[in-house]
Amino acid sequence: MAQHNSYFDGKVQSVGFARNGRKQTVGVIEPGEFHFGTDAAERMTVVCGELVIRIDGQSEWKHYPAGTAFEVPAKGGFDIKAAVATAYWCEFL
Amino acid sequence: MAQHNSYFDGKVQSVGFARNGRKQTVGVIEPGEFHFGTDAAERMTVVCGELVIRIDGQSEWKHYPAGTAFEVPAKGGFDIKAAVATAYWCEFL
Repeated sequence: MAQHNSYFDGKVQSVGFARNGRKQTVGVIEPGEFHFGTDAAERMTVVCGELVIRIDGQSEWKHYPAGTAFEVPAKGGFDIKAAVATAYWCEFL
Repeated sequence: MAQHNSYFDGKVQSVGFARNGRKQTVGVIEPGEFHFGTDAAERMTVVCGELVIRIDGQSEWKHYPAGTAFEVPAKGGFDIKAAVATAYWCEFL
C-alpha cells in the first residue's frame, strides 16, 4: 500500500509504492537546501521544477531541469538545492 | 507548504504544492477502480505505470501509458482503472 513520508519539517514529502517488487516514490521538494543519504542506489527523475545536485564526494554542483534524471550510488548521499517547488520520481535500483 | 492527501482508504495518495500560484500534485494510484470529480480543469501526466481513463459523459475508455497525459474539464470527472501501481503528476489548469 502507498505510504506517506515526510522529512525536514514537511519541506520534503513523498508517497512510496512498489511495482514488481521494486520500491519507488514520487514527492515534492519545497525551496531550500537538503542532504539525503542513500541505502540502496537510486535514480531521481525531475518531474517538474528543477534541482541543483552535488553527489557526496564530488565538488561540482550540477543542474537538473524537469525531464532529466541523475543516479546516486548505494551507501552514498547527495546535496539538493531547490530554488522552486519541485516534484520528483525516485526509483530504488 | 507541501500537503499530503489521502483518498479511498489510502489507495490514492498525493502531495500537493504550488508554483507561480498554480496548484499541482504528484501522487500514487494503487491497483483498483476509482472515480474523481474535478472542480478546476486538470491535466494528468502518467509518470510511471499506466492508467485506463473514461471522462464523465463519454463512453470510451482510453489507455494512457507512462509519459502520456490527458485533460479533464472543470466541474467534470473521470473514472480511473489502474492495473498496476501508477504514479502521476496533476496540474490544475
